[in-house]
Amino acid sequence: MKPVYLDNNATTRVDPQVVAAMLPYFTEQFGNPSSMHAFGAEVGGAVKRARKQLQSLIGAEFDHEIVFTSGGTESDNAAILSALEAMPERTEMITSAVEHPAILALAAHLEKTRGIKVHIIPVDAKGRLDRDAYRAALSTRVAIVSIMWANNETGTLFPVVELAEEAKAVGALFHTDAVQAVGKIPIDLKSTAIDMLSLSGHKLHGPKGIGALYVRRGVRFRSQIKGGQQERGRRGGTENTPGIVGLGKAAELAEQAMHDEVTRVRGLRDRLEKGLLQRIPNTFVTGDVDNRLPNTCNIACEFIEGEAILLLLNRAGIAASSGSACTSGSLEPSHVLRAMSVPYTAAHGATRFSFSRENNDEDVDRVIEAMPPIIEKLRDLSPFWQGAGEAPAAFKPVYA
Amino acid sequence: MKPVYLDNNATTRVDPQVVAAMLPYFTEQFGNPSSMHAFGAEVGGAVKRARKQLQSLIGAEFDHEIVFTSGGTESDNAAILSALEAMPERTEMITSAVEHPAILALAAHLEKTRGIKVHIIPVDAKGRLDRDAYRAALSTRVAIVSIMWANNETGTLFPVVELAEEAKAVGALFHTDAVQAVGKIPIDLKSTAIDMLSLSGHKLHGPKGIGALYVRRGVRFRSQIKGGQQERGRRGGTENTPGIVGLGKAAELAEQAMHDEVTRVRGLRDRLEKGLLQRIPNTFVTGDVDNRLPNTCNIACEFIEGEAILLLLNRAGIAASSGSACTSGSLEPSHVLRAMSVPYTAAHGATRFSFSRENNDEDVDRVIEAMPPIIEKLRDLSPFWQGAGEAPAAFKPVYA
Ligand SMILES: Cc1ncc(COP(=O)(O)O)c(C=O)c1O
Ligand SMILES: Cc1ncc(COP(=O)(O)O)c(C=O)c1O
Repeated sequence: MKPVYLDNNATTRVDPQVVAAMLPYFTEQFGNPSSMHAFGAEVGGAVKRARKQLQSLIGAEFDHEIVFTSGGTESDNAAILSALEAMPERTEMITSAVEHPAILALAAHLEKTRGIKVHIIPVDAKGRLDRDAYRAALSTRVAIVSIMWANNETGTLFPVVELAEEAKAVGALFHTDAVQAVGKIPIDLKSTAIDMLSLSGHKLHGPKGIGALYVRRGVRFRSQIKGGQQERGRRGGTENTPGIVGLGKAAELAEQAMHDEVTRVRGLRDRLEKGLLQRIPNTFVTGDVDNRLPNTCNIACEFIEGEAILLLLNRAGIAASSGSACTSGSLEPSHVLRAMSVPYTAAHGATRFSFSRENNDEDVDRVIEAMPPIIEKLRDLSPFWQGAGEAPAAFKPVYA
Repeated sequence: MKPVYLDNNATTRVDPQVVAAMLPYFTEQFGNPSSMHAFGAEVGGAVKRARKQLQSLIGAEFDHEIVFTSGGTESDNAAILSALEAMPERTEMITSAVEHPAILALAAHLEKTRGIKVHIIPVDAKGRLDRDAYRAALSTRVAIVSIMWANNETGTLFPVVELAEEAKAVGALFHTDAVQAVGKIPIDLKSTAIDMLSLSGHKLHGPKGIGALYVRRGVRFRSQIKGGQQERGRRGGTENTPGIVGLGKAAELAEQAMHDEVTRVRGLRDRLEKGLLQRIPNTFVTGDVDNRLPNTCNIACEFIEGEAILLLLNRAGIAASSGSACTSGSLEPSHVLRAMSVPYTAAHGATRFSFSRENNDEDVDRVIEAMPPIIEKLRDLSPFWQGAGEAPAAFKPVYA
C-alpha cells in the first residue's frame, strides 16, 4: 500500500519538474556563474531567471532584493545578525515565544554572549501574539523584530503586515520567518513595510540546502558569510546553481498552484480534521482555527503520548509529526504548545498533519480510518485515561 | 568542436555517478532525516554512509568529525569564528597573504570590527610561506592559525602538517583550507595535528552548495548557524541530503582515482606546461613548481592582459581562468600574484589552467595549438611588448 505522507511542514518531495529543471546544471551547465568564459555565462542567466521567479512569488519590487542562502535557518540567522551589526547603537530585539529554533536558539545565544536584550512576546491559548506586550516592548532601543508569518506546528498566521508598520514607527527593522508561509498563501511584499523575509526551498517542493533572504532595497545589510562578491557581496561562496534553479522552478510551480490547488488542499485538511474530531473523543484542534495555513492541522488527543501515536501511524503507512522534527526525539512537549498553555495531558498527544498539493482524498480516508483505533488502543494502556473521568479541573482544556 | 574545460579549480562538472547517487533523495527518499517516521529513517543511513566516505578520503579517525556545511566558504568562516569564540582569552589569528577571500575577507572584517589582531604571513616569489615570520607570529595570544593546504591560483602546497605542529606548541588551533587539496592529493588527518579542515563538493566533481568542515574530536567548537540539533548541534538547518549523498559519492570516486588518475592528470599538466613554455617567449610558470598540486598550471605571459587571453581562448572553445573567479571582473592583478611579487607586467598576463580526471590528451593539444598565436596577436597590440627590448631591470621576472 502506498504510504501516506502528511508531514509536508517538515519537508516536501521535490517536484519532478523541479528535478528536471535542475539536472542540466549538474553536468552540462556546470560552470561557475562568476567565471569569464562561456561555461559561466549561461549559468548567470539561469540564476537571474530564478531570482525573478522568486520575486514574483513573494511580490518583491526588485529581483535583486533576493539573496540566495543555504536554507531557512541561515536566512533567519543572517537577518538578525545583520540588523544588530548594522545598528550597533540599538541593543534589543523582539521575537515571539513560538518561533522556530532558527530564531530562538540564536536569540538565546545573543542574550547570553552579547548582552542583547531579547523580548520574547507571549501568545494566547490559540497561539496568537499578545499585541499589547508587543507594543510595550517596541522602542528606539530595538534593532530588529522577528515574528514568523506562519507557525510550523499549528499553522497559526501572524499579522506581520501590521506588526511591521508598528516596528517601522520606532525605526526598528522587521524580519519575518516565512518558511512555512511562502508558497502556501499569497504574499505581496512590495505593499508592506516588511524589511526582510526568510524562505526555504524544501518546504515548497524545491530542493534542500537552498533558501533565500529577501532584503528590501535600501535596508542596511551586513553579510554574514564573508568571501567572494557573490550575491552583490551579501553572501560569499560559489553559487549553488542547481539549487537556485530548482528553487526558482519550485516558486513558479507554487505560484501557479496558489489558487486552485491551495483551495483543494484546504478542503482535504478540513475533512480530515472534522473526521477525526467526530470519531475521537477528548480531542482538540490547537492553534487559531480561523486564521491559519490551509495545509496544517494540529490535533491534540488527551492522555496519550504523541510519539506512540506516530509510531503506530507509521506502522499503518502514515507519516505525520509531533511538534517540529527538530524537537522530536525529546519527550518534552513542544515549546510552541507549552507557550500556548495547552494542558500537559493534551500537548503530549499532539499530532501534526501537514498537507501539500501532492495529497488526495484517499490519504484523508486512510487517516480517518487508521487513527481512531490507534487512539483507542493507546488510551486503553494509559493510566491517565483510566482516571480521566475524575480529572481535576486543571486538566480540562482551556482552549476548547 | 567540443569545448575544452581547463578551469577545474573554479568548479568541476558533477560526475554522472554522483548525480545518479543523488537523484533518489530528491523524490523517493525525500524525508527529513530528523523525522520519526519511515520517510526519515532510511535517509539517516545515507547521511551516515556519506560521512564515512568523506572520513575515508581525508583519513579522519571518526566519521562524526565531519560536519556538513553549505560549502568551502561557510566552512572557512565557521572554523575561524568558532575558534575565536571558544578561546575568547586569545585575540590574535595567523593566516597567509595568499588565502582565498573566504579567509582574508573575514580576517579583515574581524580586525576592523572586533579588534582581532591578524598576522598575515608573507610568501616568497614561489609562493612559499615565510617560515620565520610564521614562527615569530606564533604565541599564546593566537587563537587560530589558518593556512591553506594548496593555493587555488598556483597550486603551491603548504607544509600544513609541520605548521600545525608548531601551532600546537603554543596552544593555538590549526585550521587548513583544503578546498583545492582534497581529492587531488592523499590526505591522512589522523596522523597530523590539524584541528580543522575545510572542503567543498563542487571542487571534486560533487555538487555545489555542499561542503564540510572536519573538526577533530575534542576540539572545542561553537556552531555558527544556530537552529535545530542537526550535525550534533554543530550546524543548524535541515540537512541537504541529496547534496550530502552526492558529496559522499564524489569522495568515494576521488579516492578511487587518487593514484592512477592523478598521475595521468599530472602528465597532462606537465605536457601542457612544457609545450607552452617552449612555444611562447617571455613566459614563466608561477608558484612552486617542485611542490604543487598535480592539476594546476599558472602561466604568466609578460606584457599582455590575462582578460584578453581568456577572451580569445574562450573564442577558441577553451575555458581557463585568470586568478580566481572571484576576483575576475576587476582589472587588478590577483592578490596571490601580488603577494608573490610577480612583476606587474607578468602578473597581468597570468593564466591558470586547471585539470581534472575528465581531461585528456586532445585537450592539451588544443591549447598548445591555440595559445601561441593568441599571445603573439595580443603582443603585437601591446605598447609594452613593443618596448620590451629596453624594459628596465625592475620589470625582469625575479622568479624565473
Ligand atoms: C518556521 C520555520 N523556520 C525555519 C525553518 C528552518 O528551515 P531550514 O530547515 O530550511 O533551515 C523551518 C523548518 O525547518 C521552519 O518550519
Ligand atoms: C582555496 C579555496 N578556498 C575556499 C573556496 C570557497 O569554496 P566555495 O566556493 O565552495 O564556498 C575556494 C573556491 O572558491 C577555494 O579555491
